[in-house]
Amino acid sequence: MKEIPDIIIGRLPVYLRALRHMRSQGKQTTSSQELGEQVGVSAAQIRKDLSQFGEFGKQGTGYNIPFLVDKLREILKVNRAWDVAVVGMGDMGHAIARYQGFSDRGFRVAMLFDNDPAKIGQQLGEFVIRDTRELKAAIQQAGIRIAMLCVPATAAQDVANQLIEAGVRAILNYAPINLSVPAGVRVQYLDPSTALQRMTYYIK
Amino acid sequence: MKEIPDIIIGRLPVYLRALRHMRSQGKQTTSSQELGEQVGVSAAQIRKDLSQFGEFGKQGTGYNIPFLVDKLREILKVNRAWDVAVVGMGDMGHAIARYQGFSDRGFRVAMLFDNDPAKIGQQLGEFVIRDTRELKAAIQQAGIRIAMLCVPATAAQDVANQLIEAGVRAILNYAPINLSVPAGVRVQYLDPSTALQRMTYYIK
Repeated sequence: MKEIPDIIIGRLPVYLRALRHMRSQGKQTTSSQELGEQVGVSAAQIRKDLSQFGEFGKQGTGYNIPFLVDKLREILKVNRAWDVAVVGMGDMGHAIARYQGFSDRGFRVAMLFDNDPAKIGQQLGEFVIRDTRELKAAIQQAGIRIAMLCVPATAAQDVANQLIEAGVRAILNYAPINLSVPAGVRVQYLDPSTALQRMTYYIK
Repeated sequence: MKEIPDIIIGRLPVYLRALRHMRSQGKQTTSSQELGEQVGVSAAQIRKDLSQFGEFGKQGTGYNIPFLVDKLREILKVNRAWDVAVVGMGDMGHAIARYQGFSDRGFRVAMLFDNDPAKIGQQLGEFVIRDTRELKAAIQQAGIRIAMLCVPATAAQDVANQLIEAGVRAILNYAPINLSVPAGVRVQYLDPSTALQRMTYYIK
């Protein structure tokens, strides 16, 4: 398969989210125009992005929503449930561990870790919080490829290194720090301050 | 001032985060090469991005880190403290309200809202959770321009509309749904499933 620019890959989950929302409202078809308005992308861009992966719409009738949802889930490999490890059981890790929005989008929290003796062994939902020292062996054994990093910034790189050694290939980083990772490992950042700073520039 | 592409504005907070990290480690100068490696952007791109705003580096000696930090804070308008309202006091809103990472990055949580009678009136840190029905008047009166939206997806658009009517111009949306907003209002999305889906595509 030819290499698709990451900027396009990055838009597909946003399309998928909007299409699932339309489907939940009972809609059966949509147009690149309508989808574009929902997600703030031009209709031409949406057609171009989707055309990288095949022929999904028909001139005049538009896109069949359930079909396109299935296709996008397949392309993004979320037509399955990925086990995810969560490291760091502070407020944010707690919120993530209890978050209800993963299960129908391809993910399942599978393991929780912390290095605080007061937290280790505690029950959180259906899981017992495990010692970060067990992280490498446990993740390796379970074959987990995805982790969410909710530790303090000072610990993030060290924990990331352990995750990667254990086989993790995708890290969602809540710590407000850039991670150095080898080729073949992906990182996405969910840092609220950085996201806010992207908007203040525009406030008059 | 000429219009700067949003994609460039979006990279500036990432540069700022990395530069602050370098500064915290006692570094005084850096190069576009070194900064680029930290943030995963080419040196040429960094030079080009920064050149939009002036002449910040010297050929041969690179960038003075404290100076560039100050300049970026000024450009992004975070050389001040913006008051932020948080709406929705579930797990995520709770974590946000208690998050320690805002104060030195230009933001200050100033008001908390929820519509649950069991939560309204409760103390959380230094704040009392207020009734969402008071939201419009309170935000308007305080002149708050920034909000974080931690309500369920089903309520997000309605609350966003109220925020915008009250004068909010930047919304950080934790609800997994695209918001329709008028021109002049910015939205950033912190949706963990969408961020994860951007990475699963690449996992072999």
